[in-house]
Amino acid sequence: MAAVKVYGPTLSTAVSRVLACLIEKDVQFEVIPVDMSKGEHKRPEFLSLQPFGQVPVFQDGNISLFESRAICRYVCEKYAERGNKGLYGTDPLAKASIDQWVEAEGQSFNPPSSALVFQLAFAPRMKLKQDQGVIRQNEEKLAKVLDVYEKRLSQTRFLAGDDFSLADLSHLPNAHYLVTGTDRAPLFTQRDNVSRWWNDISTRQSWNEVLHLHKTAY
Amino acid sequence: MAAVKVYGPTLSTAVSRVLACLIEKDVQFEVIPVDMSKGEHKRPEFLSLQPFGQVPVFQDGNISLFESRAICRYVCEKYAERGNKGLYGTDPLAKASIDQWVEAEGQSFNPPSSALVFQLAFAPRMKLKQDQGVIRQNEEKLAKVLDVYEKRLSQTRFLAGDDFSLADLSHLPNAHYLVTGTDRAPLFTQRDNVSRWWNDISTRQSWNEVLHLHKTAY
Repeated sequence: MAAVKVYGPTLSTAVSRVLACLIEKDVQFEVIPVDMSKGEHKRPEFLSLQPFGQVPVFQDGNISLFESRAICRYVCEKYAERGNKGLYGTDPLAKASIDQWVEAEGQSFNPPSSALVFQLAFAPRMKLKQDQGVIRQNEEKLAKVLDVYEKRLSQTRFLAGDDFSLADLSHLPNAHYLVTGTDRAPLFTQRDNVSRWWNDISTRQSWNEVLHLHKTAY
Repeated sequence: MAAVKVYGPTLSTAVSRVLACLIEKDVQFEVIPVDMSKGEHKRPEFLSLQPFGQVPVFQDGNISLFESRAICRYVCEKYAERGNKGLYGTDPLAKASIDQWVEAEGQSFNPPSSALVFQLAFAPRMKLKQDQGVIRQNEEKLAKVLDVYEKRLSQTRFLAGDDFSLADLSHLPNAHYLVTGTDRAPLFTQRDNVSRWWNDISTRQSWNEVLHLHKTAY
């Protein structure tokens, strides 16, 4: 099997989501650097692959895809028999439940958490001014989302049921930056079940391999 | 086949997305009213079905799901042999391409368009003050997204290729309110290919049946 290609900086949350999925699925990959500080993601050759000028782009032979969650679903379907076979469920009902929580991540968790990651973790590194109003507003939103998760995770070990799935995996990148790269870790650690869940998912070997790639990042 | 159930007001964009999908797939459904003006979506019995207190909730026998795009994927998989068989593609590559554009809708088109729908169409009806800053900011964002669509739709008839799919369908509710319920129709009609696409998708029988349900709405 030829390695699939992932274009983008490994430190990007969307790139990290795809890498974690590929590692879980035991699919060999090659990372192609895209230097966003030089605006490489806005150049015509990149825009021909990703018209919104965002990372990652994923290539598997002749197939080229963007949008991290769509890439993850494709990887799970295409490589159903490799690696973690239950990552996207093994029957339609399990899959629907996983999909529902992947959507909850994309629609409810991601907007406030990515705003906070940008404001609290990335803005200082980029020497950009933080917007306290945006921080306050998104912290309130995220707290409400995590209250829902706390209740859900008091009933099931993982978001979509008893097993780790794409739904949990999809949260790893933003949650990682919030817990380890800002002073907002208590959002996660002060909620008993969210804290247990975070420990469970963040100590997986696949995620630690992604973190290792961060350290050797372009 | 017993009718599936959709809980929520038909005028909701997320409810309309699911109804359009069910009509395309020729799946019989029953709409269960949820009076959001009375806060019915925040009551314990509803929160037990939808922990975020959002609509719709979908039930098919013992299966209960939320998140409109996840519900649509489930309907397409479960009722693969009914109605529009190509709505979610008939092979893994077509499906991946559709999924990619459903994600683009959810991540890039939906945030600015739903903010504009709320500010321009719903806030006046609800006698809420409009936020001109939010309107300006989201109009700029949406224009950039529609520039990408304009280019894409100069190459393919529909977003994911030659056929109407879940990717196009997913845009109908927000686009409908913007084109018909605000003065921002030119965002769509002044872009040649977006305009052609909008005419194509908004005149489908399935969407007109959803609009008919809007008129008899709870």
